[in-house]
Amino acid sequence: MTRQVAVVGGSGYVGGELLRLLLRHPAVEVVQVTSDSMAGQPIARAHPNLRKVSSLSFVRHQEITSADAVFVATPHGESMERMPELLKGSGVVVDLSADFRLHDAALYPLYYHRTHPHPELLERAVLGLPELYRDRIRSASLIAVPGCIATASILALRPLARAGRVRAMPVVVDAKSGSSASGRDAGPAGLHPERSGVMRAYAPAGHRHTAEIEQETGLSVALSCHAVEAVRGVLATVHAFVDPPVDEKELWRIYRAAYGGEPFVRLVHETTGIYREPEPKILAGTNYCDVGFASDPRTNRVVALAALDNLMKGAAGNAVQCFNLRIGEAETTGLDYLGLHPV
Amino acid sequence: MTRQVAVVGGSGYVGGELLRLLLRHPAVEVVQVTSDSMAGQPIARAHPNLRKVSSLSFVRHQEITSADAVFVATPHGESMERMPELLKGSGVVVDLSADFRLHDAALYPLYYHRTHPHPELLERAVLGLPELYRDRIRSASLIAVPGCIATASILALRPLARAGRVRAMPVVVDAKSGSSASGRDAGPAGLHPERSGVMRAYAPAGHRHTAEIEQETGLSVALSCHAVEAVRGVLATVHAFVDPPVDEKELWRIYRAAYGGEPFVRLVHETTGIYREPEPKILAGTNYCDVGFASDPRTNRVVALAALDNLMKGAAGNAVQCFNLRIGEAETTGLDYLGLHPV
Amino acid sequence: MTRQVAVVGGSGYVGGELLRLLLRHPAVEVVQVTSDSMAGQPIARAHPNLRKVSSLSFVRHQEITSADAVFVATPHGESMERMPELLKGSGVVVDLSADFRLHDAALYPLYYHRTHPHPELLERAVLGLPELYRDRIRSASLIAVPGCIATASILALRPLARAGRVRAMPVVVDAKSGSSASGRDAGPAGLHPERSGVMRAYAPAGHRHTAEIEQETGLSVALSCHAVEAVRGVLATVHAFVDPPVDEKELWRIYRAAYGGEPFVRLVHETTGIYREPEPKILAGTNYCDVGFASDPRTNRVVALAALDNLMKGAAGNAVQCFNLRIGEAETTGLDYLGLHPV
Amino acid sequence: MTRQVAVVGGSGYVGGELLRLLLRHPAVEVVQVTSDSMAGQPIARAHPNLRKVSSLSFVRHQEITSADAVFVATPHGESMERMPELLKGSGVVVDLSADFRLHDAALYPLYYHRTHPHPELLERAVLGLPELYRDRIRSASLIAVPGCIATASILALRPLARAGRVRAMPVVVDAKSGSSASGRDAGPAGLHPERSGVMRAYAPAGHRHTAEIEQETGLSVALSCHAVEAVRGVLATVHAFVDPPVDEKELWRIYRAAYGGEPFVRLVHETTGIYREPEPKILAGTNYCDVGFASDPRTNRVVALAALDNLMKGAAGNAVQCFNLRIGEAETTGLDYLGLHPV
Repeated sequence: MTRQVAVVGGSGYVGGELLRLLLRHPAVEVVQVTSDSMAGQPIARAHPNLRKVSSLSFVRHQEITSADAVFVATPHGESMERMPELLKGSGVVVDLSADFRLHDAALYPLYYHRTHPHPELLERAVLGLPELYRDRIRSASLIAVPGCIATASILALRPLARAGRVRAMPVVVDAKSGSSASGRDAGPAGLHPERSGVMRAYAPAGHRHTAEIEQETGLSVALSCHAVEAVRGVLATVHAFVDPPVDEKELWRIYRAAYGGEPFVRLVHETTGIYREPEPKILAGTNYCDVGFASDPRTNRVVALAALDNLMKGAAGNAVQCFNLRIGEAETTGLDYLGLHPV
Repeated sequence: MTRQVAVVGGSGYVGGELLRLLLRHPAVEVVQVTSDSMAGQPIARAHPNLRKVSSLSFVRHQEITSADAVFVATPHGESMERMPELLKGSGVVVDLSADFRLHDAALYPLYYHRTHPHPELLERAVLGLPELYRDRIRSASLIAVPGCIATASILALRPLARAGRVRAMPVVVDAKSGSSASGRDAGPAGLHPERSGVMRAYAPAGHRHTAEIEQETGLSVALSCHAVEAVRGVLATVHAFVDPPVDEKELWRIYRAAYGGEPFVRLVHETTGIYREPEPKILAGTNYCDVGFASDPRTNRVVALAALDNLMKGAAGNAVQCFNLRIGEAETTGLDYLGLHPV
Repeated sequence: MTRQVAVVGGSGYVGGELLRLLLRHPAVEVVQVTSDSMAGQPIARAHPNLRKVSSLSFVRHQEITSADAVFVATPHGESMERMPELLKGSGVVVDLSADFRLHDAALYPLYYHRTHPHPELLERAVLGLPELYRDRIRSASLIAVPGCIATASILALRPLARAGRVRAMPVVVDAKSGSSASGRDAGPAGLHPERSGVMRAYAPAGHRHTAEIEQETGLSVALSCHAVEAVRGVLATVHAFVDPPVDEKELWRIYRAAYGGEPFVRLVHETTGIYREPEPKILAGTNYCDVGFASDPRTNRVVALAALDNLMKGAAGNAVQCFNLRIGEAETTGLDYLGLHPV
Repeated sequence: MTRQVAVVGGSGYVGGELLRLLLRHPAVEVVQVTSDSMAGQPIARAHPNLRKVSSLSFVRHQEITSADAVFVATPHGESMERMPELLKGSGVVVDLSADFRLHDAALYPLYYHRTHPHPELLERAVLGLPELYRDRIRSASLIAVPGCIATASILALRPLARAGRVRAMPVVVDAKSGSSASGRDAGPAGLHPERSGVMRAYAPAGHRHTAEIEQETGLSVALSCHAVEAVRGVLATVHAFVDPPVDEKELWRIYRAAYGGEPFVRLVHETTGIYREPEPKILAGTNYCDVGFASDPRTNRVVALAALDNLMKGAAGNAVQCFNLRIGEAETTGLDYLGLHPV
C-alpha cells in the first residue's frame, strides 16, 4: 500500500535527505514539498542530486493539504506553533525539529529560550529512536526525531547507563560534527575559508542536546561540541567513569545484549586495520550508527564511541526508519545502503 | 537467473567498489575474491563499508576456479599475461585494467613501456563504454573498461567530434581527479599532508589515457592531468576549437541527440543555482556521468565538461553496467543510486 | 623613513592580508583602516590572526584623511568612482580592485558591465606587476594590482609570448583557485558543505581576467576558471601551441632569461619528488609565484604552469612589492617568508 | 654571536620545520643536517618550501661532527641510545623525541615498551616548556621538548591545577590533531583517501602523552586522542570538575595570572565573532598556544581549551624558543610570525 506523504520545510539539507529517501521508498508517494523561499521552483534546484528523479516543485507552507503522513524539517520553533494543525491534516507527523523532543515543558525556556505553546502535546510525542521506543513508535501520531549529537550520545551511553555501573558524577560527552549539521543558513562561520580544517569548540558548554541525552540516560551529562572538517558525520566520544571497573569482555556483553538484533547499529572495536573504532566517514549516506567502546582500567573509565551520518541516522534516515515502523513496513525499507569506501 | 562471479584483485579501491555493487546485485552471487596480499582475511578488513554484509574472505589469485564471469581489478600489466587463462575459466571477463583498451598493439610500448604479450586478443576486446558500444558489449567475451579520465573525456568530446565541427588541431583536455584515483598504493605523494589541498599537475603531458581518447574520438588530443583535493571524482574540461562556430542552442541539439536516451548520462548546463555545470562532488557513489558545455564565441571555442565518480562510471559502476548488458539484465540493475547532497 | 599608510576596505580577506603585511613592515605605519560595515570594531574582530598585534579599529570610509599612501581593497566598481579624491589625499594609491587594470576604456562595459567614469585616469595607472613594469612602478601615483588568475597566467605565458613562438590561435588557460578568492561575501555557493571537495567550473568562458591576460601577452586567450578545494592558491595551466616546436632545454633558456633575477619567481620543473611542478599548496602566505613548464612534442604544445597564493602574489603581497619599489625600499622588505610544508 | 647548529633527523616534518626556522634565525648557522635515507640529496628535495634558501644537503647520521647545539628529531627510541655521544659533541642538545620527557624511568616500559638505557640522564633533562621551566632551560644541557598533545593539555590545565580547585578524580582530555602529527611514515592509515574527513578515535585510551600531562599537572588524566581533517594543529579540550565552582571571572583571573607575561600564550574566549575559542587553524606556522576556557556551572565543570600548531609550539617552534632562552637571545627571535587568515 502506498502512503501519500508531504515534506514541510523541504529546501534545507534535512529536507533534501528526506526527499532522497522518500522518492525511492517503495511504499511512499511524495505529494507535496513546501518551502516558502523556493516556492514554484523544482526541487532539484535545491537538491542537485535529485535531477531527473522527480518533477515536483516546492509549494508554500500554507498550500499544504492532507496526507497520510507529514515529515517536518523546519527550523526549531516553527512546528511548535503549527503542530495542532499538522496533526489534524495527517495521521502521522514525523517532526525532525527539536520542538517535541523534551517531555518536560520546563526545559524549553532553559534550552530554547521560549515557553512551549503546546505543552499538552508533549506527552503525546514519542521520541523517534527505534532502538529505545520501537513499540511505542508503531502507534505514535507524533514522532519527535532526536538531534544528531543526542542520537549518537544516547546510543553510545545508554547500554552502560542501564547496566548501572556509571558513577554518580557527570558523564563527559565530547562531540565532533561535520558542516552539514549547521544547515543551509550557517552564516559567516560556515563559509568555506572559515570552516575548512577547523577543530572549532563552538559550544564548550550549554549545548541544547544535553537535555535530550540526560532525559534518555538518566545521567548528568557534561557536553562539549566541536565542528571539524567533514560535511557529514557526528562522532560522540563518551567518557564515563564506572564503579566497579568494567573490562572489555563485559563491555562486549553489555553492548551485544543491547544491540545484537538491531538492523542499524553495528558494534565496531577492532585490533587491526584502519577503521578500528566507529568512524562517520564511511557512514555517509547510510542509516548506520556504529558503536564502539574501550576500557581504560587505569582511570576506571569507559570510552564509548558512536558514529553516524547527521543527515541520516541523525535525522532523515532515522525518521524513515520510524515511519517504516509506524506503517508496518520492514524497518530497513528504503534504507538499505552500504556506504562508500573510500569517500 | 543468478550468475556466479569472481573478482580478481579485490583488495584495492576498484575491487572494493565492485564488491559493494556485486554483493547487492540481484542477479549475482560473488563466489570468489582474490588478493595475494590479504588472502585468508575477511573482505571487510579491506573494505570497512562491507562489515556485516558478507562472510567472504580473500583467496590467493592461483586459487581461482571457474565462474560465469570474472571482474579483473589488478594493476596494469597483470591481466595482459593471464587473459588466455581467465578466458578459459569463464564466459565473460570484464577487465578494469588498461591492458586491453587500445586496439593498436603498437601503442602499448609507447604508453605502457612494454610489448603486449597477446596482441591476438586485442581485436576480441570490446571497449566497455555502453554509450558507444552497447550492441557489441552484449555479446563480448572480453570487455575492457576504459580509464576514468578517458571515460569522462570521451563522453564530453565525442558528440562534438562526430558532428564534424572540431578544427584540425589538438583538442586540449585539462583533467582534475580525486585521490582515490591513485589507488591504495599511492606512495609518499598520496600521504594526507602532501595530498591535501593540492592542485598538482602530476602529468602535464604524456598521460596514458591520451591514447584511449584519441582512439575513440579520432582527434588529436593534448591532455594534462591534475590531482585536486577530493577523494572521488574526475572532471574533464575539454577545450575544442570549432569551425564554423557552434552556439549553445546547437550544442544542446548535438548533446541531446547523443545522450537523450542514456540512463547514466545527464546533461547539465544551467543559468542559476550552485551546480550549474557538471560537478563530481554530487556524483560520489553513483554511476552518472554528467555532461555539460559552454560556447565561447569570442575564441570559437566550445568548452565541454564531464564529471563522474572515478570508482563508479570511471571503473566499477561502468563495469557492472556493461555486465548487465552482457547478461541481458536491465542496464541500471544494481546501479540505481541517486548520490548525496551535500557530501 | 616611515610612511603613513591607510587601508581602504580593510575587513575583507585582501584587506586582512594587507594588514598582516603592513603592520610588520619596517618602513610603514598603518594609520587608518576603513570598513563601513565594521566601523568602530577592532581589526582583530575581522582578522583573528592579528590578535594582540595592533590596537587599531576600523573607521568609516568617509573618515579617511591624508596619508603617504593608500591601499584600496574595496569591491570592484568602488575605486573607479573615488579615485580622483583618493589621488588628492595621498601621493600613491595602490588599487587592488579591477578598476584600473585595463588600459582600454572600451573593455569595461564588456567585462564589467559599466562605463568607466574616469577614463582619463586609465593611462596614468601602471599595472602592478614588478616583473613587467618595475621601472614604471617606481614613479607611479596609481598602481593597479592585477587579478590573481591574471597574474599567474601572465607570468606563465609572457616569456613564451615574447619569444614569438606561440601560434596565431587562442592560448587555452585552465585556472584552478581556492575559496578565499571568492572573498568574504561569497554567498551560498561558498558555504562549506557546497564548496568542499568541488572541481567547479564556475566560469567555463567569459571570465574577466581574460582581458588582463590578453592585454599583457598580446595573444588571444581562451580562459576557463575552476574552483577547487583549498583556501588559498591559484594554479594557471597554460596550454600554448608553438611553431616551430620548443624543447625543454630551450624552455629553460627562455624562462631563465625572463626570471633569473626575480626575487619572487622560482622556476620549478623537476624529475623526482612530490612537488615537481608549481604547487600553490606550499606557497600559502608567501609572495612567490612558482613557474614551470613541460613540452609536449607530440602535439607541438607547451604546458606552462604558474602557482601563487591568491591573497599574496595574487593581491596583497604583490601590492606591497610594488609599494616597496615605489618608496625605494628593497623589493623583498616585509615579504621575506618561506612558506610551510606540509600545510 | 652566531651559533653553529646541527639537525639530526632532518628529513621528517619536524626536521623540516626546524630547518625553516633555523635557516632564517639571525643567531644561527645550520652546519649539518642528517638523514640516513636521504643522504647526499639537497634538503629542498624533502622540504620544497626551502627551495632556493639553502645549498645544504643531507649527510648520514654517523658523519655528524661537533656543533654548538644539536636539535634531534629522530623517531622515538633513537636518541635514548645516542644521547651520551650527542652530549659529548655539543654544549646543548634539544631533543624533540619522547626519550627524555619523563623523569621516572619506570614509566618508559609502560608507555614505550622498553627499558630506558640511560636513566642517569633523565634527571639532567629539563622539560622544554618555557612557560613552566624558563629559568632551568637557561642553563640546561639537555632539553626535552614535550609532545604536541601534552603541550596543549598542560598549558590548558596547569593554571587550574595549581589553583587547587580540580576535584580528586581524573581530568578528561579529549584531543584532536591534524595529519602532520603522524609524521612522514604514517602508513596506510595516513593515505589521503583514508585520512580525509575523519574523526578517528585512534587512541581512545592509553596514549603516551598521558604520562607527560600527569607528570606536569600532578593530576590523574584520562586522555582520548582523535585524528581529524587538518594538516597542522592540535586542540586539547580539557574537561575538569572543580570544587567549589569557578566562575568565568575567576577563570580569567587564574589564566591571566599564569600567562599575562607570556609572549606565545594568548587567552581567547570571546562572545562574538567566528573565532571565539582557541582554534589551531589560524595558528599554522606560528608559535602561539591559544588558551581558552568556559565554565559549565550546571555540572561544576571547567572546559579548558588549548590550540597550537603541532609542528611549531608543539615541536620545532617550542624547541627554538627554548634554544633562544638557552643562548640568551630574546625568546621570540626567529619566531615572530603572525599566522594566516583565512588558510
